[in-house]
Amino acid sequence: MSVSSPATKANRRREAANRESWQRITGSEPVVRDVRPAGEVLPGMSRDLVLTSGAPLPWDEYVGGQREAIIGAAQYEGLATSRDEAIAKLTSGEIRVGACHDFGAVGSLAGVYTASMPVFVVENINSGNVGYCNFYEGNEPKRLNYGVYDADVQQRLDYVHQVIAPVVGEALRRIGGLPLRPIIRRALQMGDELHSRNTAATLLFTRALVPALLEMAREGDERIGEVLEALDGNDYFFLRLSMAAAKAMADAGAGIPGSSVVTAMGFSCRGFFIRVSGLGEAWVRGPHATVQAKLFDGHTEDEITWMGGESPITETVGLGGFAQAGAPGLQRYQGGSPDLMVQRNLEMYEITVGEHPHFLIPYLGFRGTPTGIDVERVVATGILPVMDIGIAGRDGGQIGAGVIRAPSQCFTQAVELLNS
Amino acid sequence: MSVSSPATKANRRREAANRESWQRITGSEPVVRDVRPAGEVLPGMSRDLVLTSGAPLPWDEYVGGQREAIIGAAQYEGLATSRDEAIAKLTSGEIRVGACHDFGAVGSLAGVYTASMPVFVVENINSGNVGYCNFYEGNEPKRLNYGVYDADVQQRLDYVHQVIAPVVGEALRRIGGLPLRPIIRRALQMGDELHSRNTAATLLFTRALVPALLEMAREGDERIGEVLEALDGNDYFFLRLSMAAAKAMADAGAGIPGSSVVTAMGFSCRGFFIRVSGLGEAWVRGPHATVQAKLFDGHTEDEITWMGGESPITETVGLGGFAQAGAPGLQRYQGGSPDLMVQRNLEMYEITVGEHPHFLIPYLGFRGTPTGIDVERVVATGILPVMDIGIAGRDGGQIGAGVIRAPSQCFTQAVELLNS
Repeated sequence: MSVSSPATKANRRREAANRESWQRITGSEPVVRDVRPAGEVLPGMSRDLVLTSGAPLPWDEYVGGQREAIIGAAQYEGLATSRDEAIAKLTSGEIRVGACHDFGAVGSLAGVYTASMPVFVVENINSGNVGYCNFYEGNEPKRLNYGVYDADVQQRLDYVHQVIAPVVGEALRRIGGLPLRPIIRRALQMGDELHSRNTAATLLFTRALVPALLEMAREGDERIGEVLEALDGNDYFFLRLSMAAAKAMADAGAGIPGSSVVTAMGFSCRGFFIRVSGLGEAWVRGPHATVQAKLFDGHTEDEITWMGGESPITETVGLGGFAQAGAPGLQRYQGGSPDLMVQRNLEMYEITVGEHPHFLIPYLGFRGTPTGIDVERVVATGILPVMDIGIAGRDGGQIGAGVIRAPSQCFTQAVELLNS
Repeated sequence: MSVSSPATKANRRREAANRESWQRITGSEPVVRDVRPAGEVLPGMSRDLVLTSGAPLPWDEYVGGQREAIIGAAQYEGLATSRDEAIAKLTSGEIRVGACHDFGAVGSLAGVYTASMPVFVVENINSGNVGYCNFYEGNEPKRLNYGVYDADVQQRLDYVHQVIAPVVGEALRRIGGLPLRPIIRRALQMGDELHSRNTAATLLFTRALVPALLEMAREGDERIGEVLEALDGNDYFFLRLSMAAAKAMADAGAGIPGSSVVTAMGFSCRGFFIRVSGLGEAWVRGPHATVQAKLFDGHTEDEITWMGGESPITETVGLGGFAQAGAPGLQRYQGGSPDLMVQRNLEMYEITVGEHPHFLIPYLGFRGTPTGIDVERVVATGILPVMDIGIAGRDGGQIGAGVIRAPSQCFTQAVELLNS
């Protein structure tokens, strides 16, 4: 009989806990059930709340585009009739600000949610938990989520909320919900990594709705043609479903005592944060990520600004930067070379618990994507998680795309907290 | 002033002719206009004809599955009421056999065409020539094109010809035709190589028809749902469009005096053939290709049989095996590794005139596919064109998939003919 040292025993406990997180994350089966107003379905959501990306901050710490997005969202929801009134009410606390993750949701860029905004309802049928994400605003450079709010932005949001979302919701109900794992799995074999590239997934999602849309058209629904056109023109449409699915998957692996597996990553205007399974709902905060961007013509690096973003939930479950060897087409959009993309993807195996049994990369010989980021391995190897993201500009709008690396401080701090 | 030797002058003439072929092929813009019965649109087609793959042969030289497919096609068309009657009429010449390419068409496997079969009409709008291809039979292992004809095969063909083809044709007419180059271009960035993998292209094609299909459904057409389902289940559906488009592109580069560029490749039960631009419509014949196959479970190499196939028209225009670095997912279907696929793809640059300006491979840094096979380079380098194909079994049906290499004899003979 061998005698284990306390250190070995602790290692085994950690390993078992990590394996449990990993199994729950990779065994997840997300199904998009419905589209409903945030106020009706987000646990704890109320009409005086504006949700936004990142670990929660006092109102006066929100700056730049993220602050503008919150102010714009309050106006959009009718909580204030002017910018000044919105600021006054946010300052007095009459309008409150919350963190998306605390309400089961994930935010894209500034990631603002108000009660009337329709959200995708994605249930993880293997664990019962639900993830939410609101709708893609469209390709226009001026968007609420990039910190711009005016009549054009309002009109576009109204269109998304009053035409696109209801039609998509009705179609989803008619087909009885749609399993997303098969779509993600197929899209990974069609050049998507489900964060910065969602071209195939958007097409597959649209295709799955067509039988219901046909039925609705036969019954006289006049909106079907334009909704299809809108989906067709927005290759990013599926990102919100990818995010909601990733949230539902990641949350399944959360709250395992002793587990050092990351269950959320994201950022606000003030810095990066992660959540770790064994630390429950605690936020581990760090400085901003480092960025390698490819900017659209006419933009410069000094314009790059941080206004929030929780789409790195996709990397948390083995997609995005962790699947970029499957999406060589991204090099045109965010820079880099195919070799570099493969090399970065391979690096991620060094810091993850295992290979995803369903998310496979043809170019890596159908190897499963590296899944379940272990903060201890990140600290031990010095390899930082890589993420594919859209880059926001100082004056609002998207000015490029690129790859970011999470800051090391989040991981060293998480390890300390786990061992304390 | 420099004086050129006769050899250098000849080289320059060859180079200019090849450049002309290459420009016509790569500058092609194929548009699918319509779906019509072969008898109405194929130049020279008549009711007593059965077309089949490969350089033309006397009736008694057709053997095995290709012979069976011709006999079955004659029965399907009602040219004979029994197998014996069909054989008697084919032997007497009352039913004639023709070569697809001589009638503007390309055949998949045995590639049989009869007058009533609907074909895609694909016009190359930059040169005015038209390519044709009939419809995919479906995924059933028993198919006329694999040499099997019985009541089930007949029923399935009737369904394709009487339901799927008319609906697709009507939709195409309603949208005013559909440019195929953008679909091929996008599909190459979504894991297809447009020969053995057409998953994304089929999806993009279907998506393009949806507005017309919606309109038809609104007007009460009851067949739309099932046609969509049929398209969805057949990832190979687009191959016939890819082949018709490739035929329209390749023919644009044909008939340039002195050009050593290949304008068609294919095979019958008796061997491989190529056509070369400077040799016009002559057939240069060789023995069978060599094959590296991955067979479906339960099948063995001695079952592999040749019953015709002109889908290598896709390789002729820089797709299929010449674009396989874009389709790493194919390794599961036809064997090989991603590295081998990239290596094979790179080899093809050694034997082609140039890089396709529109067909780009993300994994090769958006390099254009190697296009315009030069028979002289094939002979000089000893590198034989590589093709992705489905493998037919001795007893009919598909038993696997793999990669074949054209036989060297076709190329040495073509060089001799060009220089004679």
